[in-house]
Amino acid sequence: MIDRRVCFRAFCCALCLILAQCAWGFQAPDGLNLMPVPQEITVNKGNYALKRDFRISLSGKPDERLLQASTRFLRRLSNRTGLFLAEGYITNKNFGEGGSLHIHVKRPGKVRLHEDESYTLNISKKGIRVEAETDLGAMHALETILQLIEPGKASYQLPQVEITDSPRFPWRGLMMDVARHFQPIEVIKRNLDGMAAVKMNVLHLHLTDDQGFRVESKSYPILHEKGSDGQYFTQIELRTIVRYAEDRGIRVVPEFDVPGHASAWLAAIPELGSVEGKESYEIERNAGIFDPTLDPTNEKTYVVLAAVFKEMAEIFTDEYFHIGGDENEGKHWDGNKSIQAFMKEKGFKNNHELQNYFNTRLLSSLESYSKRMVGWDEIMQPGLPKSAVIQSWRGIDALVNSAKQGYQTFLSNGYYIDLMHTARNHYKTDPLPDTVSLTDEQKKLILGGEATMWAELVIPHTVDSRIWPRTAVIAERLWSSQDVNDMDDMYRRMEIISLQLEEHGLLHIASRDQILRKLAQGGDIKSLQTLNNISGPLQRYTRNPGGTMYQSYSPFTLWADAAVADSETSRLFDSAVKSYLEDKNSKDGEYIKEQLLIWYENHESLVKIINASPMLREIEGLSEQLMEVSQLGMEAVYLLEKNETPDLSWLSDAEKVLKKARLQGGRTELMNVNTIEQIVRSLVKIESGN
Amino acid sequence: MIDRRVCFRAFCCALCLILAQCAWGFQAPDGLNLMPVPQEITVNKGNYALKRDFRISLSGKPDERLLQASTRFLRRLSNRTGLFLAEGYITNKNFGEGGSLHIHVKRPGKVRLHEDESYTLNISKKGIRVEAETDLGAMHALETILQLIEPGKASYQLPQVEITDSPRFPWRGLMMDVARHFQPIEVIKRNLDGMAAVKMNVLHLHLTDDQGFRVESKSYPILHEKGSDGQYFTQIELRTIVRYAEDRGIRVVPEFDVPGHASAWLAAIPELGSVEGKESYEIERNAGIFDPTLDPTNEKTYVVLAAVFKEMAEIFTDEYFHIGGDENEGKHWDGNKSIQAFMKEKGFKNNHELQNYFNTRLLSSLESYSKRMVGWDEIMQPGLPKSAVIQSWRGIDALVNSAKQGYQTFLSNGYYIDLMHTARNHYKTDPLPDTVSLTDEQKKLILGGEATMWAELVIPHTVDSRIWPRTAVIAERLWSSQDVNDMDDMYRRMEIISLQLEEHGLLHIASRDQILRKLAQGGDIKSLQTLNNISGPLQRYTRNPGGTMYQSYSPFTLWADAAVADSETSRLFDSAVKSYLEDKNSKDGEYIKEQLLIWYENHESLVKIINASPMLREIEGLSEQLMEVSQLGMEAVYLLEKNETPDLSWLSDAEKVLKKARLQGGRTELMNVNTIEQIVRSLVKIESGN
Repeated sequence: MIDRRVCFRAFCCALCLILAQCAWGFQAPDGLNLMPVPQEITVNKGNYALKRDFRISLSGKPDERLLQASTRFLRRLSNRTGLFLAEGYITNKNFGEGGSLHIHVKRPGKVRLHEDESYTLNISKKGIRVEAETDLGAMHALETILQLIEPGKASYQLPQVEITDSPRFPWRGLMMDVARHFQPIEVIKRNLDGMAAVKMNVLHLHLTDDQGFRVESKSYPILHEKGSDGQYFTQIELRTIVRYAEDRGIRVVPEFDVPGHASAWLAAIPELGSVEGKESYEIERNAGIFDPTLDPTNEKTYVVLAAVFKEMAEIFTDEYFHIGGDENEGKHWDGNKSIQAFMKEKGFKNNHELQNYFNTRLLSSLESYSKRMVGWDEIMQPGLPKSAVIQSWRGIDALVNSAKQGYQTFLSNGYYIDLMHTARNHYKTDPLPDTVSLTDEQKKLILGGEATMWAELVIPHTVDSRIWPRTAVIAERLWSSQDVNDMDDMYRRMEIISLQLEEHGLLHIASRDQILRKLAQGGDIKSLQTLNNISGPLQRYTRNPGGTMYQSYSPFTLWADAAVADSETSRLFDSAVKSYLEDKNSKDGEYIKEQLLIWYENHESLVKIINASPMLREIEGLSEQLMEVSQLGMEAVYLLEKNETPDLSWLSDAEKVLKKARLQGGRTELMNVNTIEQIVRSLVKIESGN
Repeated sequence: MIDRRVCFRAFCCALCLILAQCAWGFQAPDGLNLMPVPQEITVNKGNYALKRDFRISLSGKPDERLLQASTRFLRRLSNRTGLFLAEGYITNKNFGEGGSLHIHVKRPGKVRLHEDESYTLNISKKGIRVEAETDLGAMHALETILQLIEPGKASYQLPQVEITDSPRFPWRGLMMDVARHFQPIEVIKRNLDGMAAVKMNVLHLHLTDDQGFRVESKSYPILHEKGSDGQYFTQIELRTIVRYAEDRGIRVVPEFDVPGHASAWLAAIPELGSVEGKESYEIERNAGIFDPTLDPTNEKTYVVLAAVFKEMAEIFTDEYFHIGGDENEGKHWDGNKSIQAFMKEKGFKNNHELQNYFNTRLLSSLESYSKRMVGWDEIMQPGLPKSAVIQSWRGIDALVNSAKQGYQTFLSNGYYIDLMHTARNHYKTDPLPDTVSLTDEQKKLILGGEATMWAELVIPHTVDSRIWPRTAVIAERLWSSQDVNDMDDMYRRMEIISLQLEEHGLLHIASRDQILRKLAQGGDIKSLQTLNNISGPLQRYTRNPGGTMYQSYSPFTLWADAAVADSETSRLFDSAVKSYLEDKNSKDGEYIKEQLLIWYENHESLVKIINASPMLREIEGLSEQLMEVSQLGMEAVYLLEKNETPDLSWLSDAEKVLKKARLQGGRTELMNVNTIEQIVRSLVKIESGN
């Protein structure tokens, strides 16, 4: 009966050694579109047909959360398939057996670290059966089912599968910076839905920074009144977020970044600052690392922090509480005589020791509210209690070091999605690579990782296109087996999952055309799309030199804001060129020539749009570069086809065209230049050395 | 100095008579993109260049609301032009003179009926000056400025104009039905921004109906607990909406529809129902008119209503309060002996008199909270106090009748945007046409009108595409002079304003492609767009026969949900055909043939997409019809060009093709069939009589 059997981890590793397939990584079985890929999956022959009379039954101890999740599942199933399902709402009337989908859960899950999230999913001709220890596992199973839907002849169906699944890491997070640019509650909600769809379970909210204090404080209302430009979450909104997340099995970890990154705190309460006698601070409008720092020698600092933490400890029910602690250079401490005297008195040799003193006081304050303190790498100083948790932005070495010293820790280095690296880049980052030597106990301290969405350059309208779909790939890295790492298959699945994510109201695809429509001012956006699809935003921090090119109130709906890190066009082109250079097959050759011609011809229509829209002047050069480099590519392919060797003057011109093609335009750069260069270099059989 | 002088109303009417231009209506001057068109405008030579150092100054009595509105204005100006403005926030530091834009307001406006909303706007080489009695007028001026932005050579500019503006009607509303499908607060907010952009000033929220009770009640929490499926506004959200609207000069009028449309009330409190001894009611899932009705002879009905109204009267600060009162057929009253006895006792001859008794009691209850009662046509019964206000869904006769009887009244008939009529249709509807004979006093009672967004067939993701851009056209009808009625110019401006409305996060354009992407399941959506752009959703109530084809939980992200009422493609084609049939010019001929060929060829690529997506099977016939009718059109144009008369069998086939082309597919119909029929009929010189 079982004829197509594909199985992960359990017994494929042996096979893997034989086939030496590991280097290329495992593919998801049979072209299924699962992301993250489950731990074990058996695909059987046949399907389960979805029909209008689809019903859900539940047994065991299903709670209200699971009823609501099941109702949301029905609605998504219905919109995904167009089926007018007879059943609209799942209530306690659905307790019992006999549903098309039966869900059995042993107990309601607790939304906390290390809760059981496992599930089994069995789809046969007779129906669908989900079993899980907790409803959190069952909710993951519902997401898996939605990813399994495939078109059949008349309607939609599910493949017959047996899945046993559980996460590799217990901490699979997304950090959203709502301080640099505020992100209102509806943005948070739709991203929570996106997270749930790819089985992530931690939302980390970076709530304060130099650019804003984003929560309502009842103990010190001046903090949000003077520190937020009116853009903050009310306490009711915070509770709503926590509840919304919990309904989706997601923990919410709040971060109040201290003692550095403190301009917004100090704009409200300047006396907490470290500059003697300074009577006012301003909310910061630029990006970067700034000097305003809380004074750790001022008792009032602890009074205010304790009051705010107390309010927030009650709202954020999770055990973990983040105090930031990063990038404090202590410049204002150095210049403050009274702080210097304090350090001398306490025998602190440097600012790190002073900050450690500060952190340790916060830690005990947090412990009085039953919280465990989380902080960035910098908090790990000698003497830091082992109950603290380290979030590593510095890298795998710092992560491993934390674990070796006995701290719980998780990775963010490599998952900085604001840097606009490709999904490939993030997918390669593993929090626990084979190269690391740790004891089993130490390995358990490595909790997982978090994608970090720093928000200097994003606004509510564009943030989704920075988070998605790349975060789905990070979610897979943190959930699936280490040996699920086939790049091509990852990209194939990512594109499909990306489309599905739109059903949550996420704007990661739609916002791009919205921006281009605005830029085109009524003109046809086709030529803009063609150029934008091959333009990548400048990576790392180069888009915003010195952190001062953009202010927080600058326009963020321009050319670079429509561009994204991954370009499907570019990937298809790269792959065709790679294959063509290997065997000169005509199919790839035709594809390459066709694509180059589209790029070459694009300039003519784009120039008309640019002329009507001053906002687009910044990409006129880029468009010209694309035309020129595509022409170069066409010439190179022509020479290659004719097996002709180019003369020196052509090569010299080619170098110039390639160099010019690398110039940025509209804070983006062309993503196909290296590939075209490969074609050129193949003519002269020398290695690329640019 | 003034060389292009165009002036509205003030002295163009004389000119109008001379040029006999009135029949075609006035165009907006000089191709400006203003909607609504201002009352008086003089366009001078020259421009005002927008630059990075743009600053705002304020004088008179600007309040906090205007400071915030000015900050929002800056941000939109910046995103619209790409200018990195040096100024980010407008605060009381901006009081004084000397800004690039100077705003002078005499007093803070009160957001209430008949408040002064007038303004003058003067743009010269030196700068921009706004003067207004109230900040509400000044905020309208800011919207006018944003609509005046035009591309210059290097950057953006404003034309030098002198505008004197004020609304024709004081009540320019949009009704949103949040009962049939709930629309969460972010949907309301983005639509409030859209309304403000086209100078509308009333949001009417239809908060209860058979399908849901959508507000949190503190006096009777069971109402939202059992009447809403968990989908309702909390009281804090309601206050947030009222505040958000007020910040944009918009009144919020709540509607609690009684005594009919009451299933949701009764699902919560069955004893208020009119069926003797009935112990439970269900929330309605279908669309239509249903029997469950509040019992007007039960004193508890008034106790509950008074309590709810009291809570809501405090939250909704506007003077007007809507009690619905429509479509109560009183069937349950007829069948209730005790109600019949009550009627006999009171001497009521029919259900209308009983309902009038009910309404009059509500009216006095509302008056005790200083509210004026608004209701639909049906509430106007003999004896209704003159303080009541009539919203007319029945039509202009009912409206005029109300005014003649001394009631304030406003029009919705003709503005039912849920019926999917074209913008043209709504634009022609005037609340006070010349044909009406009323005294000046009576005319003043006609307050304006309201677009009504009934929500049986819309969800949060699609509602924007039903509201916009057509509501902008209704906004113009209610603001601008009666003689602004050029259809072509209206459509030209509507398309531009529609693009601008995207900046508020409205999804009226983006949601269409999102749906098509979902339907295409990863395929290219181009051929879907081509067909969808010429497919209009079935009009009036034909899409949902009997109100039972769709339930409230049915999928609403299918083919018809991507289609919209107005098709630019169809308008351009109609206009080319019209012109071509008049003079057979080759330019139109080429355009027509090209368009017909695109439609004809579309089927081949679309079929591939359809085959991969069962959800699209419902439009396979429609796509084929488009292919066939386009082929017919091409043949007809060919015959016309050759001056050949078709033979009878061709004509007979043509009739069949045209008839088939009118079949619906995916709850839409092709919008170009009549126009293609015109080409065919022109061959035989007979009038279209289908």
